[in-house]
Amino acid sequence: MARLGEYQYGKSRVRISRVTRQGSRHEFQEWTVRVLLQGEFEASFTLADNTSILPTDTMKNTVYSLARESHASTIEEFAIELGDYLLRNHAHISGVTIEVAERAWEPLLLDGKREETTFKLGGPELQTVRAERSRDGQWRVTSGVDQLTILKTTKSAFTGYIQDRLTTLKPATDRILGTCASICWEYSAPSSDYAQARARVLDALLREFAAHQSKSVQHTLFDMGKSALAAVPEIVRIKLSMPNLHHLLADLTPFGQDNPNHIFIPIDEPHGHIEATIER
Amino acid sequence: MARLGEYQYGKSRVRISRVTRQGSRHEFQEWTVRVLLQGEFEASFTLADNTSILPTDTMKNTVYSLARESHASTIEEFAIELGDYLLRNHAHISGVTIEVAERAWEPLLLDGKREETTFKLGGPELQTVRAERSRDGQWRVTSGVDQLTILKTTKSAFTGYIQDRLTTLKPATDRILGTCASICWEYSAPSSDYAQARARVLDALLREFAAHQSKSVQHTLFDMGKSALAAVPEIVRIKLSMPNLHHLLADLTPFGQDNPNHIFIPIDEPHGHIEATIER
Amino acid sequence: MARLGEYQYGKSRVRISRVTRQGSRHEFQEWTVRVLLQGEFEASFTLADNTSILPTDTMKNTVYSLARESHASTIEEFAIELGDYLLRNHAHISGVTIEVAERAWEPLLLDGKREETTFKLGGPELQTVRAERSRDGQWRVTSGVDQLTILKTTKSAFTGYIQDRLTTLKPATDRILGTCASICWEYSAPSSDYAQARARVLDALLREFAAHQSKSVQHTLFDMGKSALAAVPEIVRIKLSMPNLHHLLADLTPFGQDNPNHIFIPIDEPHGHIEATIER
Amino acid sequence: MARLGEYQYGKSRVRISRVTRQGSRHEFQEWTVRVLLQGEFEASFTLADNTSILPTDTMKNTVYSLARESHASTIEEFAIELGDYLLRNHAHISGVTIEVAERAWEPLLLDGKREETTFKLGGPELQTVRAERSRDGQWRVTSGVDQLTILKTTKSAFTGYIQDRLTTLKPATDRILGTCASICWEYSAPSSDYAQARARVLDALLREFAAHQSKSVQHTLFDMGKSALAAVPEIVRIKLSMPNLHHLLADLTPFGQDNPNHIFIPIDEPHGHIEATIER
Repeated sequence: MARLGEYQYGKSRVRISRVTRQGSRHEFQEWTVRVLLQGEFEASFTLADNTSILPTDTMKNTVYSLARESHASTIEEFAIELGDYLLRNHAHISGVTIEVAERAWEPLLLDGKREETTFKLGGPELQTVRAERSRDGQWRVTSGVDQLTILKTTKSAFTGYIQDRLTTLKPATDRILGTCASICWEYSAPSSDYAQARARVLDALLREFAAHQSKSVQHTLFDMGKSALAAVPEIVRIKLSMPNLHHLLADLTPFGQDNPNHIFIPIDEPHGHIEATIER
Repeated sequence: MARLGEYQYGKSRVRISRVTRQGSRHEFQEWTVRVLLQGEFEASFTLADNTSILPTDTMKNTVYSLARESHASTIEEFAIELGDYLLRNHAHISGVTIEVAERAWEPLLLDGKREETTFKLGGPELQTVRAERSRDGQWRVTSGVDQLTILKTTKSAFTGYIQDRLTTLKPATDRILGTCASICWEYSAPSSDYAQARARVLDALLREFAAHQSKSVQHTLFDMGKSALAAVPEIVRIKLSMPNLHHLLADLTPFGQDNPNHIFIPIDEPHGHIEATIER
Repeated sequence: MARLGEYQYGKSRVRISRVTRQGSRHEFQEWTVRVLLQGEFEASFTLADNTSILPTDTMKNTVYSLARESHASTIEEFAIELGDYLLRNHAHISGVTIEVAERAWEPLLLDGKREETTFKLGGPELQTVRAERSRDGQWRVTSGVDQLTILKTTKSAFTGYIQDRLTTLKPATDRILGTCASICWEYSAPSSDYAQARARVLDALLREFAAHQSKSVQHTLFDMGKSALAAVPEIVRIKLSMPNLHHLLADLTPFGQDNPNHIFIPIDEPHGHIEATIER
Repeated sequence: MARLGEYQYGKSRVRISRVTRQGSRHEFQEWTVRVLLQGEFEASFTLADNTSILPTDTMKNTVYSLARESHASTIEEFAIELGDYLLRNHAHISGVTIEVAERAWEPLLLDGKREETTFKLGGPELQTVRAERSRDGQWRVTSGVDQLTILKTTKSAFTGYIQDRLTTLKPATDRILGTCASICWEYSAPSSDYAQARARVLDALLREFAAHQSKSVQHTLFDMGKSALAAVPEIVRIKLSMPNLHHLLADLTPFGQDNPNHIFIPIDEPHGHIEATIER
């Protein structure tokens, strides 16, 4: 006998872009939305009964239609609006998860001056949110950034680790430390200004990463999280996943050359992976 | 004040390939391994103390070295060997998660006859395993397949769903149903033959997918899971994530043409996403 | 002063899928089409005069509409039909290039028996065609395959090459030879059966690859091309681009282990790249 | 009979990163290099004779070793150094093509102030060069940028094009114009300052893109090229490939909503593709 365990369904990769006009200056945002519903949909799985299915195509339409009416200025506000709409209009939905990712479009700068209606993609990173609510609960909002690609050329060491018969790594007192980080932080309560909170979290993270005298990725990761918690009281925890994007010192001894931390070989694989949640 | 919550670390994307010779016939396997450790590593995060850190570089070496000694014929056996080695040799490790993905290399067939030492990649899918063990516990082995890309051109309908003011989808009594499925199943106990169990799960899944009179992705997903559970007693649950890779019927009415399920427009985004766990 | 040099424009990534019914058995094809036009479009560039522009959106519609009417069974025939249509209907177009790529959908086999309406993606490779014609010329048809991912575990050596002060590579008398080949061949005249010609070219290529006593990628590449030319009289030349997807023998000496061609480390980068055209 | 036509070989995806120290301030560059050789290598293809083959592994070593000695500050200078080295040291090489791509690492800015040793990836774009020389010829240097991802939210129209029975596109007097451009420009002679020339080309391109009253992609492309030629006398031609990354106005009429250029649906496929070379 088989029975249905946990399940959910929804629509992924619903993309919208939005132009907001403030006189001659435009704002431009591009979002990718994911909607996931929990609720009384068992019969669709087990009895081929679709009467409780809101089609994923309709979820897509809902994103488009709500985006037009929305006054949200951030992905957090839009995620909450969208989830509230779905819960309000469909009584059999018991819970909703909305994820939104925003691409890094930035106003084009020419001679340091902002072009008013032209934009350039300013990095691979995505600003993200995951907002979850069950019908009778509060919103749990987890904002984040994915693929934040940063690197420091000094103030990073790795020594004093376990040595055994399988060790070939040499201790490094000065190395490149690079990562393509995925970071997310959870708010204790709805924020009055998600944009400002995000800016402060990111600033704290980047400032710590740059200044840190790193003894390991673990060490830097923890202090980055600690700094973010210190800087932004409204967040309760922050999770950092930091792959170690190695730049190996090129071994030039076969060619009779030294290499005083000058030329490195970047590799994508294999890579270290460090992740931790830092809490108050 | 900040404190360390959950954490783990390890090495990702460690790739190996292996040639096994049986007379003039060769077997070829290509694996990507991920090692994640849990344990007493707090001091590395909070005190910059690396004395308990097994370098991820050493984990990589461990994969290479063990692969040479291993008698594992499946990714499940190798994952268990690797995890056991790490737990046995490092007392401060409390838990280990090993993931291995195998690419779909198949012996080349010419005129239906197997070439003995030549291989062709036979699909995008990856055969996977995730094996987890805490020091004092048993192995929990979850095998799976990722990116299984399959499609049926009939025996798929979608009707009878909720209609509201945002509905534009038309009911379909005959449509294409395509997916790039991620599926994983958990064993109740160590299997004596993972290769054979995997083959039976996959066969049951594909057989059901092909034969099913689908009323929705949910319906097909559930019956696929049910069939796998029925076919393979040693698995306790199976999780299926099935994006709905839509093939939209091309609307040719502007050109005065009909389109009786002949020409479709495949789209990658947006896409439906259905996931559920089916249990005994 | 600036003047317009070479130019062309068109539509890329126009995707269609097609179901062809033969009783209870279905054929399924998925194509991605690219249309590029040459002709008298200078004024659109230099004078902002769009009167000669066929919108790329209309090219997309043309693909959809023609696909419905088409009796083409191969991508070659469809490319020619599409190009002929465009030249016939737009007198100011002087030349057209049509590219079509077909994904490797294969009928699902269960117990060796073909499922009639279910398909599985059988590899990363794409069957391709590039068909070019100027208004007063003949069709030049170049068929091919991209991302043909194949590998042999023996009968491959590489020795006798230049040794200099920057050489660190060790000669290999028995190594893995893997590639993700892009191959294309040109027909001397329109073929009466592109499907059969394609099958014979691919068979000749794979047969040679499997049987070859390789002294280098160059050596194997040339003999593969030679075999294809010998097998298929209607092609005049064949171009092969074969990245060398290295599988490096794992160096286990630091761990006191031998490694008699057993465990390898596959790398995607850097990789050798060999390309040549073989002609009659 | 088969004979060898055009051929070349080399090494792709050779990655290096380089730290240059100027007191406490560091420069960081990450390059991917491709080396392609032409010359007397026929025997390797046709006779399995490797005596003239410089192994691609040695080319990789050459990149590493030369990078250590190099005083090049730009990818153009490094490409030329590398090619010259290969021609000078291997008399049987008749021609060399070196391609280098540089990732968009930028110094991290905090409060508008440059961090001295921390970097952030500032976009998906790659700065590129392709440098070609035959033994007895001069260097032909073609610099460029790939994946330059830019977008304007107004000053773009598309009207007055051909209307026929397959037209469904509606004229637009105000639309989003986005592209992920690949652009390359050729120098008439070796430049004394490639970095400055590159900066001026990019500035001219971006400035024109932002200011342009676009009547079509063709129109904007041509004027961008014209501006670059006007701004930088040392380049003789410039080629622009500009996919039209459509943002479709969302049709909200089924939901009783207007949409005055507010909400769009970005699509990656299908897309227009416009390319042209602009010359003096």
